[in-house]
Amino acid sequence: MPSQAQAPPRNVFYAQSGGVTAVINATACGVIETARRHADQLGKVFAGKNGILGALREELFDTSVETDADIGALRHTPGGAFGSCRHKLPPIKDDPRPYTRLIDVFRAHDIGYFFYNGGGDSQDTANKVSALAQQRGYPLVCIGIPKTVDNDLPCTDACPGFGSVAKYVAVAVREAALDVASMSETSTKVFILEVMGRHAGWIAAAGGLAGERPGDAPHLILFPEVPFDQADFLRRVDATVRRIGHCVVVASEGARHADGTFLAESGLRDAFGHAQLGGVAPRLAAMVRDALGHKHHWAVADYLQRSARHIASATDVQQAYAVGEAAVRFALAGQNAVAPVIVREQDEPYRWRIGAVPLARMANVERKLPRAFISSTGYGITAKAHRHLAPLIAGEDYPAYRNGLPDYVRLRNALVKRRLRRYEG
Amino acid sequence: MPSQAQAPPRNVFYAQSGGVTAVINATACGVIETARRHADQLGKVFAGKNGILGALREELFDTSVETDADIGALRHTPGGAFGSCRHKLPPIKDDPRPYTRLIDVFRAHDIGYFFYNGGGDSQDTANKVSALAQQRGYPLVCIGIPKTVDNDLPCTDACPGFGSVAKYVAVAVREAALDVASMSETSTKVFILEVMGRHAGWIAAAGGLAGERPGDAPHLILFPEVPFDQADFLRRVDATVRRIGHCVVVASEGARHADGTFLAESGLRDAFGHAQLGGVAPRLAAMVRDALGHKHHWAVADYLQRSARHIASATDVQQAYAVGEAAVRFALAGQNAVAPVIVREQDEPYRWRIGAVPLARMANVERKLPRAFISSTGYGITAKAHRHLAPLIAGEDYPAYRNGLPDYVRLRNALVKRRLRRYEG
Repeated sequence: MPSQAQAPPRNVFYAQSGGVTAVINATACGVIETARRHADQLGKVFAGKNGILGALREELFDTSVETDADIGALRHTPGGAFGSCRHKLPPIKDDPRPYTRLIDVFRAHDIGYFFYNGGGDSQDTANKVSALAQQRGYPLVCIGIPKTVDNDLPCTDACPGFGSVAKYVAVAVREAALDVASMSETSTKVFILEVMGRHAGWIAAAGGLAGERPGDAPHLILFPEVPFDQADFLRRVDATVRRIGHCVVVASEGARHADGTFLAESGLRDAFGHAQLGGVAPRLAAMVRDALGHKHHWAVADYLQRSARHIASATDVQQAYAVGEAAVRFALAGQNAVAPVIVREQDEPYRWRIGAVPLARMANVERKLPRAFISSTGYGITAKAHRHLAPLIAGEDYPAYRNGLPDYVRLRNALVKRRLRRYEG
Repeated sequence: MPSQAQAPPRNVFYAQSGGVTAVINATACGVIETARRHADQLGKVFAGKNGILGALREELFDTSVETDADIGALRHTPGGAFGSCRHKLPPIKDDPRPYTRLIDVFRAHDIGYFFYNGGGDSQDTANKVSALAQQRGYPLVCIGIPKTVDNDLPCTDACPGFGSVAKYVAVAVREAALDVASMSETSTKVFILEVMGRHAGWIAAAGGLAGERPGDAPHLILFPEVPFDQADFLRRVDATVRRIGHCVVVASEGARHADGTFLAESGLRDAFGHAQLGGVAPRLAAMVRDALGHKHHWAVADYLQRSARHIASATDVQQAYAVGEAAVRFALAGQNAVAPVIVREQDEPYRWRIGAVPLARMANVERKLPRAFISSTGYGITAKAHRHLAPLIAGEDYPAYRNGLPDYVRLRNALVKRRLRRYEG
């Protein structure tokens, strides 16, 4: 192999994986802007169309055709600018073909750096690709870049994406609670907001940041980590309504019964006998109606929460950008099979730095909400949780607006000319 | 009666009515700040605890104990700072007692000005109270102040509260659509957002502002004004998915079948045979699943949309404040039984002024979305609608933040000492 001093700098492949967030493009921005500043050492940054599928299908966007302004605008644009996907590669022993294909595509486009921006699965994939490349003698630097609104990755103080959802949910609870409190005398007494988070209660816990004084909303939080007890829940809803006139509930989509079944598996059937779709909030609302008769409303924020760049946490945006930037720095420093993570140095004022963690340690570990973050009743957050979560929603980072709407960028997304045969994966 | 020059200035009664909004407190701010600037002509501003119920029950908050800073902060605080209610007074001929009671309470507290901040019902009530006071020889100036997120009041270019919900919905659609587009290759292909608006499609129409270019979301809007045709809807969803890979739907809560029944009356039953709660979005999602099999997600914004002061329209905030200010000016100018309204002078750039409309003309008329605002397909908005709606969401008016959350004010809300016997209404 020629020495790096003589060879043209090798290219970068960047892919977004899994559910997108309000700030995953800020990470892309960090990667591309940093790579552009090191044009002597790095070639083009190719981005996978729809994530890793783009590599398998040899559908690579050439980000070098994008203007600096457009790349800069990624910092404030939600969603996945290049497309993402839910596509888990099979274990290598079951089917090595996708891995071989990745290396073929990387070789065809002189890609020496693989940045994989995703959750636990993606860290695992990046780790496997790294090992395989080494085994095949293909020089490849693999860096995982953490991302997930669920905040369930280990080894990092926060997952980029989480802080912004956390802020959205805390703001929504504070605002909706004012609405409900205003009207409860003659109208809605119970309001239920369903939030994301899968098996981890981090996002639900963030709802707890909305309250400042005793009696403030949310009055009850349902965590996936605490088995749901219907009778106890209804008793507490009713007691709250009697005490302060209304009750605001934040329910995790992952809330489940003691036997492990999700609340969203409600057993509801429509006229044709089809199982009714999930929705923890309507399920809880039906319980409240049937058992207590209180007037209620419910909301399901769904994608609104994870795409809400308009109310992103400035801390989250900074961290999302920083992990992208760090990925490039790590690669240039010769690190491999690692991921940049957020290391908390101090709570108040919050201080953090970037650390490095081997991919093997991040892969396939689900970090749930610690028990010490859940109050003894099981329905609230502790002071410790508050101390941990509050800095993650700190600061506002508003996008620019045009005609009353956020001015989000759309890239040109020009595909690189194919060099290989089509992949039948 | 002594002349006004000799008598102490008479007091003001202000009440919030019906569903609260992100900016109804900006109207309260306009009323109270303007009244404070005319302390020579106006006494204290009393606010009804929970709206008109506060007058009936003689539960009046004395706003004179609030600091200027706290009253100023009402401008950026959502919900109803004094409480609102859903309480429609009976026709006078059926039961004059509530009206008599109102006048008794007004007399007991030397209230000469009644500002009623609400929708069509409230304008009607203010009008009736005005007539009755005159008939009983009690000098009372009655001013209605328009408010409703549904935007269904006549005689005004926009209803304060609407512009901010409109902006929330347009922003949410733009953001969620970026999320869906990123993932549609391997994940969600159909996304349905349910919005408010009751029998009028104004809020749903505002979702249409999210799109800029052909093919942009929202791809289909369901208006209450257009009878729902399930087969046609499903055909269009499927065609959109096939054409551009995904489909974003905005559905009004008031969407209904040709026979007039609401989609939310879904006929769903739970295990106990109870009718399942409404929710147009989950109902539509079930149709998509059963007929097309596309992966889908749905969101119900519910109170989040009408309390979202964090993303309020600056135009809406200005208009909400202006109608409060104008109410006081009208009263001081000797106008009675009128409401300040927004008069559009020009589309681009948007220019508006305050006008005055007799309450009788505003009462009990529901202004639906004009047919000329709905595209010929029935699923989109026209250029004319865009021109009308775009200025209403223009401008951002961010609240101050503390610890990552909007710093909303809580007033002291000190009750005035009772002077009358308890009311058994």
